[in-house]
Amino acid sequence: MGSTARKVSLTGIKPTGEPHLGNYIGAILPALELADSYDSVYFIADHHALTTIRDRDLLRHYTRSVAATWLAAGLDPDRTTFYRQSDIPETFELAWVVSCVTGKGLMNRAHAYKAVRDRNREAGKDDLDAGVNMGLFNYPVLMAVDILLMDADVVPVGRDQLQHVEYAADIAGAFNAVYGEQFAFKIPTPIVPAEGTAHTMPGTDGRKMSKSYGNTIPLFAPEATLRKTIRRIPTDSVPVEAPKDPDSSSVFTLLEHFGTADVVADTRAALLAGGMGWGEVKARLTNALNHQFAPMREKYEALMAPGSELDDLLAHGAEKARKQSQPLLERVREAIGIR
Amino acid sequence: MGSTARKVSLTGIKPTGEPHLGNYIGAILPALELADSYDSVYFIADHHALTTIRDRDLLRHYTRSVAATWLAAGLDPDRTTFYRQSDIPETFELAWVVSCVTGKGLMNRAHAYKAVRDRNREAGKDDLDAGVNMGLFNYPVLMAVDILLMDADVVPVGRDQLQHVEYAADIAGAFNAVYGEQFAFKIPTPIVPAEGTAHTMPGTDGRKMSKSYGNTIPLFAPEATLRKTIRRIPTDSVPVEAPKDPDSSSVFTLLEHFGTADVVADTRAALLAGGMGWGEVKARLTNALNHQFAPMREKYEALMAPGSELDDLLAHGAEKARKQSQPLLERVREAIGIR
Repeated sequence: MGSTARKVSLTGIKPTGEPHLGNYIGAILPALELADSYDSVYFIADHHALTTIRDRDLLRHYTRSVAATWLAAGLDPDRTTFYRQSDIPETFELAWVVSCVTGKGLMNRAHAYKAVRDRNREAGKDDLDAGVNMGLFNYPVLMAVDILLMDADVVPVGRDQLQHVEYAADIAGAFNAVYGEQFAFKIPTPIVPAEGTAHTMPGTDGRKMSKSYGNTIPLFAPEATLRKTIRRIPTDSVPVEAPKDPDSSSVFTLLEHFGTADVVADTRAALLAGGMGWGEVKARLTNALNHQFAPMREKYEALMAPGSELDDLLAHGAEKARKQSQPLLERVREAIGIR
Repeated sequence: MGSTARKVSLTGIKPTGEPHLGNYIGAILPALELADSYDSVYFIADHHALTTIRDRDLLRHYTRSVAATWLAAGLDPDRTTFYRQSDIPETFELAWVVSCVTGKGLMNRAHAYKAVRDRNREAGKDDLDAGVNMGLFNYPVLMAVDILLMDADVVPVGRDQLQHVEYAADIAGAFNAVYGEQFAFKIPTPIVPAEGTAHTMPGTDGRKMSKSYGNTIPLFAPEATLRKTIRRIPTDSVPVEAPKDPDSSSVFTLLEHFGTADVVADTRAALLAGGMGWGEVKARLTNALNHQFAPMREKYEALMAPGSELDDLLAHGAEKARKQSQPLLERVREAIGIR
């Protein structure tokens, strides 16, 4: 980081669920492409997940699982910096330091916090802070620190995450205004996908594939699970021999994402002409997914096996990241009078 | 800590000003006496001071100054544990962890935070959070962590600080309720001075000596400064030869604290009888203070000199403290699924 003239990009990955096809297309692939243009930094925000996950085995599993997923999907740990947030203790001390120059008003206006208050209000609760823990409330500060500690120039985010980068810039600015003569943070810039380019991959129910809709197709499920999930995608009851609207079920839309051009064209023609049933389209989708993801799944499973190189890779990544975070925190301490 | 059957006491020292006589009598002496009955832990809360001190040289000076003060006053670094908060990085990671089980409502009700809102309300401000930084708002969480990390049984506090220990107990309880099967914090207990035993040492204006009244007598001022401060204590204008009320000026009350019994009795008699002026009483007070504090001041000045053993003593204290904090944080990480 900083060793070349390239700018630094930072991508945070929250380990709160099993990766699915929507994640792969919408988040993982675009993030991996950053490595072509940036000194790319990726981290697994395991401490962030604590605001919602209180099952230690689950948190452990998700953390390993997202790490294995990104590596299997092509993240090159030699060419990039890839680590767990919890391996960078500087994060938490810096979070305290910047919180002392961060106005509480900023947090009062944070989207995620306000959303909980809105829900409480709608539910008629007297205490609008009901169910809000201090982790949730402090979340934007920790997020800012993840960015500032790595000296990131750019942070690719979805539109719904834009505020986090704006807050990081605000917090950096507040610190620089007080201590800037001694030490100034780089002000990060968001990279937001152009309007309309967000992934529109449908889930099993036709809505955008999303964990919150419960309509996901897991990325690395065993083949039998994959087959079953796809078999359950709703389709219309037009008989096999009758012509069908390819776009009436997400089966075909998904095939368009993952099938070869030949298979997609042939399937569309057969559906429109009549004579092909949805069962056949589902089989073609299953084969297409299997074809594309089986090698990745093997890699994933090897990394998930106990004693794999996963832990070493993450430890190595943490070492690289701390070469950035340790001297930065030292300079901050110097600037504020802690050393 | 924990190596003997004795309980652990914890005392936090905020480095936000020059130590004065009121601190010595009201805080330092009683805290040092704890070492007779407890495994006593003392720490300088330098990171806490960041919520108000933004001048790095001042923070550095205050931190060294309180460390030197407590050591000069008799703190035995071999028999106790004495360190700077900033030397214990586990503090900050644990602060994040417990914040995820700490309800925001608890912080909403914190005295220091509510006091600022009250002042804003009285000033007619629309934004009751005006001037509140997230350090101030998070303060009780960090305070709780200082206590929990050292596995403290008891925390001696003034009545106005009682809430901090109650919050530490609440936060420990909240963590234990979620993760208690894996790891449970010890629930700390406050030790509060009995009603009416708080120090009543008067300042130069007769009110309780306190930094906020600007009526303090510095503990280790050079003799010339001390003489000048005492010379300025207001007295009545009764002529030298006339009888005087000893309690009409804090000069005599202070002499009662620091003079020998003989000098105090002789002075009282002379004032009541007439024939002794306030100037003479002031000289006696100056001499009494000099007599008691000159050796301590020498020790203080030696410790404050660049290259003194102060830094080594603090580093050694940090080593001792981390023998407690590091394994504790490891057990917490294990309990929450971060390792």
